[in-house]
Amino acid sequence: MSENLSVHYRESILVELKNDNYLRAALSQPVDETPVWMMRQAGRYLPEYREVRAQAGDFMQLCKNPELACEVTLQPVRRYPLDAAILFSDILTIPDAMGLGLYFSTGEGPKFKHPIKTAADVDKLMVPDIAAELSYVTDAVSLIRKNLKGEVPLIGFSGSPWTLATYMVEGGSSKDFRHTKGMLFTDPKTLHKMLDILAKSVIEYLNAQIDAGVQALMIFDTWGGVLTPSDYLEFSLNYMTQIIAGLKREKDGHRIPVTLFTKNGGQWLESIADSGCDAVGVDWTTDLKDAQSRVGHKVAIQGNMDPCVLYADPQRIEQEVAKILASFGANEGHIFNLGHGIHQYVSPDKPAVLVDAVHRLSRPYHQKS
Amino acid sequence: MSENLSVHYRESILVELKNDNYLRAALSQPVDETPVWMMRQAGRYLPEYREVRAQAGDFMQLCKNPELACEVTLQPVRRYPLDAAILFSDILTIPDAMGLGLYFSTGEGPKFKHPIKTAADVDKLMVPDIAAELSYVTDAVSLIRKNLKGEVPLIGFSGSPWTLATYMVEGGSSKDFRHTKGMLFTDPKTLHKMLDILAKSVIEYLNAQIDAGVQALMIFDTWGGVLTPSDYLEFSLNYMTQIIAGLKREKDGHRIPVTLFTKNGGQWLESIADSGCDAVGVDWTTDLKDAQSRVGHKVAIQGNMDPCVLYADPQRIEQEVAKILASFGANEGHIFNLGHGIHQYVSPDKPAVLVDAVHRLSRPYHQKS
Repeated sequence: MSENLSVHYRESILVELKNDNYLRAALSQPVDETPVWMMRQAGRYLPEYREVRAQAGDFMQLCKNPELACEVTLQPVRRYPLDAAILFSDILTIPDAMGLGLYFSTGEGPKFKHPIKTAADVDKLMVPDIAAELSYVTDAVSLIRKNLKGEVPLIGFSGSPWTLATYMVEGGSSKDFRHTKGMLFTDPKTLHKMLDILAKSVIEYLNAQIDAGVQALMIFDTWGGVLTPSDYLEFSLNYMTQIIAGLKREKDGHRIPVTLFTKNGGQWLESIADSGCDAVGVDWTTDLKDAQSRVGHKVAIQGNMDPCVLYADPQRIEQEVAKILASFGANEGHIFNLGHGIHQYVSPDKPAVLVDAVHRLSRPYHQKS
Repeated sequence: MSENLSVHYRESILVELKNDNYLRAALSQPVDETPVWMMRQAGRYLPEYREVRAQAGDFMQLCKNPELACEVTLQPVRRYPLDAAILFSDILTIPDAMGLGLYFSTGEGPKFKHPIKTAADVDKLMVPDIAAELSYVTDAVSLIRKNLKGEVPLIGFSGSPWTLATYMVEGGSSKDFRHTKGMLFTDPKTLHKMLDILAKSVIEYLNAQIDAGVQALMIFDTWGGVLTPSDYLEFSLNYMTQIIAGLKREKDGHRIPVTLFTKNGGQWLESIADSGCDAVGVDWTTDLKDAQSRVGHKVAIQGNMDPCVLYADPQRIEQEVAKILASFGANEGHIFNLGHGIHQYVSPDKPAVLVDAVHRLSRPYHQKS
């Protein structure tokens, strides 16, 4: 990026946001302190979330109610000085809108009433009408943007086509993905057909989120890491690359940064960085120094504290933050985050320690002489 | 290894084994075809196994009965021309012998009646008396060796200290390992104390297996891959390295090859190869060509077909075998295996296709001009 363009982005972002550190870091631009947010920051570890969730009834009723989705999105941002909000929703809204009948059974996670079992099931799949079926999501986005009042940017998101396909074919969560991989190895054509429809759906879905007001995007590829290197490229990264190419990357003169996160994808960072994304999410099994030296010249890096560190005492949390910041070093383009979602059993005092430590301990790395 | 020493090993192995390809490959010595075995090859996908298991009652009664353990160990070797047998047992026999009360509840996997919850619980742990508590394992080893009649070598095994510790602290299987990692981050001294006792126990246990007749060893670090790179070195690899140093590596003039397998450890192969092991197990998320070029000069490599390929048709299985063999290339030191245990839903016809394909398609790679 030329210096002029960089200045242009800097100024145009600053016009409407009080804190644009997240967007700047995602575009590898200078910041005064490392921005931080937490995957699943709107969640069960917060008593105020549990209260709203109880009000809503079940999890999908919470997702489908824009006022309540807005409320739980804002809760962590009110409680902690986080540098970004992320839309509260579920990754499985698209298959639900395709008619698969998403529901949540207690203790067992997401389930589909009508999973994909045959090539004939795939033939029936169609790109959902986003305006008709998923307006609860875009309505929530507009409402959140309005209520955020320009404090911090709002991140929109989607699951990756491969990750969505695993839930659709298994009918829910899985340990071994035997039905989806069974399809991959016995009938790859049908799987490709499903992934293609999903990629087209995700493009429309994310562009609708941009139209409604999200200022950045993230694609969660929770299960890409269970594939072989070549199958990952063919069945997961390939479709995420298509999605990135299909997104509106500019809105009102601002660039919309896209972060791509493949859990357990540490071995494939170079390929991921070539997808056209602006930032790559990294889990804690990869050293950030290593990630930085491999792909830091191309993309920003998001990560990567083990969420279990939040079970430790404040001193230990601070130590771990210091270690991660040091491993990234005095480079631009780091968004601090956990390497996976925050756990429900974490005490709400702990994220405060984390966020404070990231801001305070990162300042020296950003001081330019 | 000098050429003379290599010849010595070759001859002394051949004296007692009709097929020593597995041992030779594990020591990176020449073979005429790539040896193959399957993790969990004695298991529920075999109707003859399910019959014996039903006879035995529950899973631990099967493990604790040397005659039945011998029978199920031999079943896959009778059915397929595999190049090694592996002792049928459970990785949690050591914590059971320590008094934690292992049991299996249907559909939920292994559980402990008395999990480790506090530092005081760790203080009470002692290295078990192998001869008194685990003679059912060594008796099974002797019986299997006798019944194998020198056809193929017998592999003994243990879980890694870190992997055993996760089950002991969580009280069973886990998705997030929050209790064990909680201990790691809040009270690492206590965790180290437990890991030290486990490492000492594993050394005695594996040496007893060697005395009883196993001809090779494997250490399963099923959960090392959930750690950060530095925690992996400190809390998992460190103890496996101690174990390898404490093993009898020679028996009757033969070297006992040791394979170390950390699931999802592909990013750390160089460190694993420095542990003193002879072979490194690799799962399917790492390309064998990559593994070969990184550590193939130091150790043999075991792996790495995705077990889900066994859901495909014979032609597709053969294709995948060909691809894996080609990625390893014309080098010595490859033991073909799955990247994780064979699934219970695989048809017993499929391993026959796999084993045949490995033997047949690998011969050209081993022909020396």
